[in-house]
Amino acid sequence: MKENVTRKLIRSHLISGNMEPDEEIAIKIDQTLTQDATGTLVMLELEAMGLDRAQTEASAQYVDHNIIQSDSKNPDDHLFLQSATRRFGMYYSQAGNGVSHPVHMQRIAVPGKTLLGSDSHTCANGCMGMLAIGAGGIDVAMAIAGEPIYLKMPKVWGIELKGSLPDWVSAKDVILEMLRRYDVKGGTGYILEYFGEGLESLDAMDRHVIANMGAELGATTSVFPSDDEVKRFLATQHREDDWVELKADSGAEYDRHDTIELDKIEPLIAKPSSPGNVVPVREVADDPIYQSYIGSSANPGYRDFAVAAEIVKGSKTASGVSFDINPASRQILTDLINEGHLTSLIASGGRIHQAGCNGCIGMGQAPATGRNSLRTTPRNFPGRSGTKEDSVFLCSPETAAASALRGKITDPRTLDQPYPEIKEPATPTVDVQLLEEPLPIEEARKVELYKSKNITEIPDMDEMPDHMELPILLRMNDNISTDEILAGGSRVLPFRSNIAEISKFTFENVDEEYYDRARATLNAGGHAVAAGHNYGQGSSREHAALAPRFLGLRAVIAKSFARIHWQNLINFGILPLTLKDPDALDFINRDDAIHLENIREAIQSGDTLTAQIKSSGESISLLHGLSGRQIDIMLKGGLINWIKSRKGTE
Amino acid sequence: MKENVTRKLIRSHLISGNMEPDEEIAIKIDQTLTQDATGTLVMLELEAMGLDRAQTEASAQYVDHNIIQSDSKNPDDHLFLQSATRRFGMYYSQAGNGVSHPVHMQRIAVPGKTLLGSDSHTCANGCMGMLAIGAGGIDVAMAIAGEPIYLKMPKVWGIELKGSLPDWVSAKDVILEMLRRYDVKGGTGYILEYFGEGLESLDAMDRHVIANMGAELGATTSVFPSDDEVKRFLATQHREDDWVELKADSGAEYDRHDTIELDKIEPLIAKPSSPGNVVPVREVADDPIYQSYIGSSANPGYRDFAVAAEIVKGSKTASGVSFDINPASRQILTDLINEGHLTSLIASGGRIHQAGCNGCIGMGQAPATGRNSLRTTPRNFPGRSGTKEDSVFLCSPETAAASALRGKITDPRTLDQPYPEIKEPATPTVDVQLLEEPLPIEEARKVELYKSKNITEIPDMDEMPDHMELPILLRMNDNISTDEILAGGSRVLPFRSNIAEISKFTFENVDEEYYDRARATLNAGGHAVAAGHNYGQGSSREHAALAPRFLGLRAVIAKSFARIHWQNLINFGILPLTLKDPDALDFINRDDAIHLENIREAIQSGDTLTAQIKSSGESISLLHGLSGRQIDIMLKGGLINWIKSRKGTE
Repeated sequence: MKENVTRKLIRSHLISGNMEPDEEIAIKIDQTLTQDATGTLVMLELEAMGLDRAQTEASAQYVDHNIIQSDSKNPDDHLFLQSATRRFGMYYSQAGNGVSHPVHMQRIAVPGKTLLGSDSHTCANGCMGMLAIGAGGIDVAMAIAGEPIYLKMPKVWGIELKGSLPDWVSAKDVILEMLRRYDVKGGTGYILEYFGEGLESLDAMDRHVIANMGAELGATTSVFPSDDEVKRFLATQHREDDWVELKADSGAEYDRHDTIELDKIEPLIAKPSSPGNVVPVREVADDPIYQSYIGSSANPGYRDFAVAAEIVKGSKTASGVSFDINPASRQILTDLINEGHLTSLIASGGRIHQAGCNGCIGMGQAPATGRNSLRTTPRNFPGRSGTKEDSVFLCSPETAAASALRGKITDPRTLDQPYPEIKEPATPTVDVQLLEEPLPIEEARKVELYKSKNITEIPDMDEMPDHMELPILLRMNDNISTDEILAGGSRVLPFRSNIAEISKFTFENVDEEYYDRARATLNAGGHAVAAGHNYGQGSSREHAALAPRFLGLRAVIAKSFARIHWQNLINFGILPLTLKDPDALDFINRDDAIHLENIREAIQSGDTLTAQIKSSGESISLLHGLSGRQIDIMLKGGLINWIKSRKGTE
Repeated sequence: MKENVTRKLIRSHLISGNMEPDEEIAIKIDQTLTQDATGTLVMLELEAMGLDRAQTEASAQYVDHNIIQSDSKNPDDHLFLQSATRRFGMYYSQAGNGVSHPVHMQRIAVPGKTLLGSDSHTCANGCMGMLAIGAGGIDVAMAIAGEPIYLKMPKVWGIELKGSLPDWVSAKDVILEMLRRYDVKGGTGYILEYFGEGLESLDAMDRHVIANMGAELGATTSVFPSDDEVKRFLATQHREDDWVELKADSGAEYDRHDTIELDKIEPLIAKPSSPGNVVPVREVADDPIYQSYIGSSANPGYRDFAVAAEIVKGSKTASGVSFDINPASRQILTDLINEGHLTSLIASGGRIHQAGCNGCIGMGQAPATGRNSLRTTPRNFPGRSGTKEDSVFLCSPETAAASALRGKITDPRTLDQPYPEIKEPATPTVDVQLLEEPLPIEEARKVELYKSKNITEIPDMDEMPDHMELPILLRMNDNISTDEILAGGSRVLPFRSNIAEISKFTFENVDEEYYDRARATLNAGGHAVAAGHNYGQGSSREHAALAPRFLGLRAVIAKSFARIHWQNLINFGILPLTLKDPDALDFINRDDAIHLENIREAIQSGDTLTAQIKSSGESISLLHGLSGRQIDIMLKGGLINWIKSRKGTE
């Protein structure tokens, strides 16, 4: 068989399983990436496992989310992360160094390798010819400890790129075109592999943009070949030696095919409040805007800032517009200064923020209530900006900059200026001052973990009971994101190392009384929630499973699940149950209850569970879809219990 | 009489009163300054007064405090401020434009004029030959409406500067030397006037540094002459026409004299947790540091950043140090970029933040618990950084930069490099893109105030009762700051327009139960608190009076008061009572009570009130020190009631 890049990557890392769609496979992990919002739990998990040293080729901990530091919680947690990375022999990227994905790409990513990251946009490094997958923190902890990652063998979706992009259209519009075609769950169960002559006009950072927002399609990851462009990129980082070629065999096969004619793409924009809500910019042109936001892992490249700078150069942003510039990394910030672009941005009215995730994860720059915010970020789920009644649009830097000038949503093609030609600096900056290398093992062993009072133990969890009567506390629609299950942002994430505290925010935007109502079920065997399709899309944060579990959530009934959150539910002993007949959701009402009998035997003997609805007495069929290993984890009450029990028998 | 600059400024603006120390005088106000933390109440007060248009020569509203925007509260409040400034004919400095004091100095300050500002560091513009005074918001609202400011005629303290500063010593060390000599209440009742040949070596921004931290001495303000250096500075801002000369008469007299020999000053540092806790840097050298922080209104000049940049240029900060760079304004940021200094700061390890007050007011960059933070900011009151158990030192940019390199507190004279010579850019940047000019009156009248749900009415307040029995809920020591009465920071200040909400944070760092205990007194006639000297030092925020008043605070008994907070207490109908015998504080215990009889008559008939202590039955003598006008305000229950009653009789 003529193999595609994806299958080559999987085959070269396959530990167990058959590479047949939907079969569980185990893959060796070469590199890991953790960020600070998810990393503190990972480090506690590594400590609980008794890890001596990371078993990967490279593991990097980034501090890019919680960098506002309103009180001692964030800086204390940073010190904890620093001590843990020193202890376990990992890289440590200090606050201010930049967003994990572009920094990893610049400094650590290696073609042909696998990368597992506790951040849903880990897939961005698929641009480097890597198999880069987002996962829950505890899966990444297992990988750091040398365990493989288990997943269902995805299908491979080959997307052929033809031609080249017209003026005023850039990589962001390519992935928005995919979202326009297939919406937020269109990629579920697939790895997207891009190929074709259209790649020639997309540089490595353009590919990063496209790979990054594969997460918004629900794809397992996105993969690009490692070609001469990747070699060129590594050379700019003084890492040419890390390059290996990795290309699909000529005539390679894919499970599904698609074609994008780059020449035919026009400027696109995702309207509030879903990345899949994509229309041409011209359809919403002239709506007044409050904010134009440049930055994030979805547009992190030098050119993304430079093109905005060239567009506004010599002009002024419209009166009152907040033109927020968020450098993706120190390296890129330095290049933007050296090439004069930062001055252009400031002179036009730009407001320069520190390098990091910032407003993309609700850390500052929240827009005013109901006012339109145009952002180059990857997500616009309701409230993710920090503002409850927000109105966030996702677009390219070209569209954001043009709109900042006019004060209203603007198709950049309507600007009266030539399309700026952006050239990379001749010698891009390489700056590792805030990136600590792993300590030698003897030094590492002397390091003690630093724990402030904000760092608490992970709560104990009981085994799966044999029968449960669970009140349905919430009945939700399609596409509920982890931002709605447990928000990010500067109000919530500082408690990421304290489950009792962070659990107070669970589902607060769905139902303000959930916390109290959930706690009331704790001594009565817990509760369930019900939802539509694509439940748990978005962030990989395992708190969105651990916190409701702490409050008594034992089962989620849904039409379908997003991949990472599904895995997180299993890892924390919450049954993810798919409705055999999706329409049966109509029979499940809030404040009704379901009854499950002989659960332990039932999940071991087949895929189907039968639940009885208390009010009507009717039965509904539910599928668990767990592998043998996952059944074992679920019966034990979650992965931590499973690891402990395995240790006990070693 | 040969007059000093201070008396010339007062005389030229005197509306009523005699210029004799301690007599109440009224002064015409030419300019006002409000920032966003205090400004929303000011705008509500202006609306309540029915103001049509600001009656000053220039009134400017700055957004520099609450610029993190974690949710909709801050951006919604910014829109409110913008709409109000448009309505009332004021300047509006948008978030990201910079810190009020340096921006005001650059763009609006005029020698010979008076400036009243609802920020305690308003005094910084004394560097421009202005009488620049910090006050509570409602006093500033009155000034915007054309009313004079009333204050007790201060004494004038002439401080003669001789010689010039040695290498590695800069303006910050001059004001630290004053704090070393006189501590945080050493300037109470005085205006500090600097003169002498030593001025020649201090440029306008150096004088800003010295004038700014006069607030920390408790001085009413600080004054510098308007000389050729001020002319030069205005010329760099393209405002040479605004210059007038204003110098003391030759042989002018002062109420008190002092001399600073600049050549003899060495690098100084204020240890935790008071700006008056000053020692030579060498005495605390080698203590490890967590953070080095450059910026704030206390070191806002181009040279303050440039000197730090030159010190670290080509070197790296010590591993793990957070080297936080906070540009004071967009203009200065642009100059730092153009001259290559920002690149030096970043390359050494610097973390660049947006232009604004930021960590100085607890908006981000909080240090880790108990770790040493060196800051060029003006204040290190306990917890002001956002971290409850903080350890903040105040120092010059030279000391901060040297310490960042070494990773420990470092006397910059011990660096092995020549002292950098800093030259201002040939043509400094002038950038008014984020500074809106006042609207013409006809346009202004069409503007409607924009109020989000975070903007609530100012609560009603009742008149002063004739007798009160007040439990003493708190018994505090000397130098309690407004940060301890009602904290700043990103957790608290977003509620600045909502008194019911912000009151929940009152005294939380003194007594976590104060809020509940205070509310319990609300229906029983309220309560009192007792404290030592210099009660209410620090910020001008009137919330520190309004919030406890809302919770039933009717009287504060103290050995002495800080000026602005004393005025704020009166403005909100809280009796500020000074102990005739300071030692009598020993007789007042927490949870005891005091009894006051015939209050209304007593405060009108003399300065002394007699309070009976409930437990012992003993009497203590208390002085109110109110002027006739203030007695009237107090009897009405505060300034808002007084204005309303005055309107009723107009």
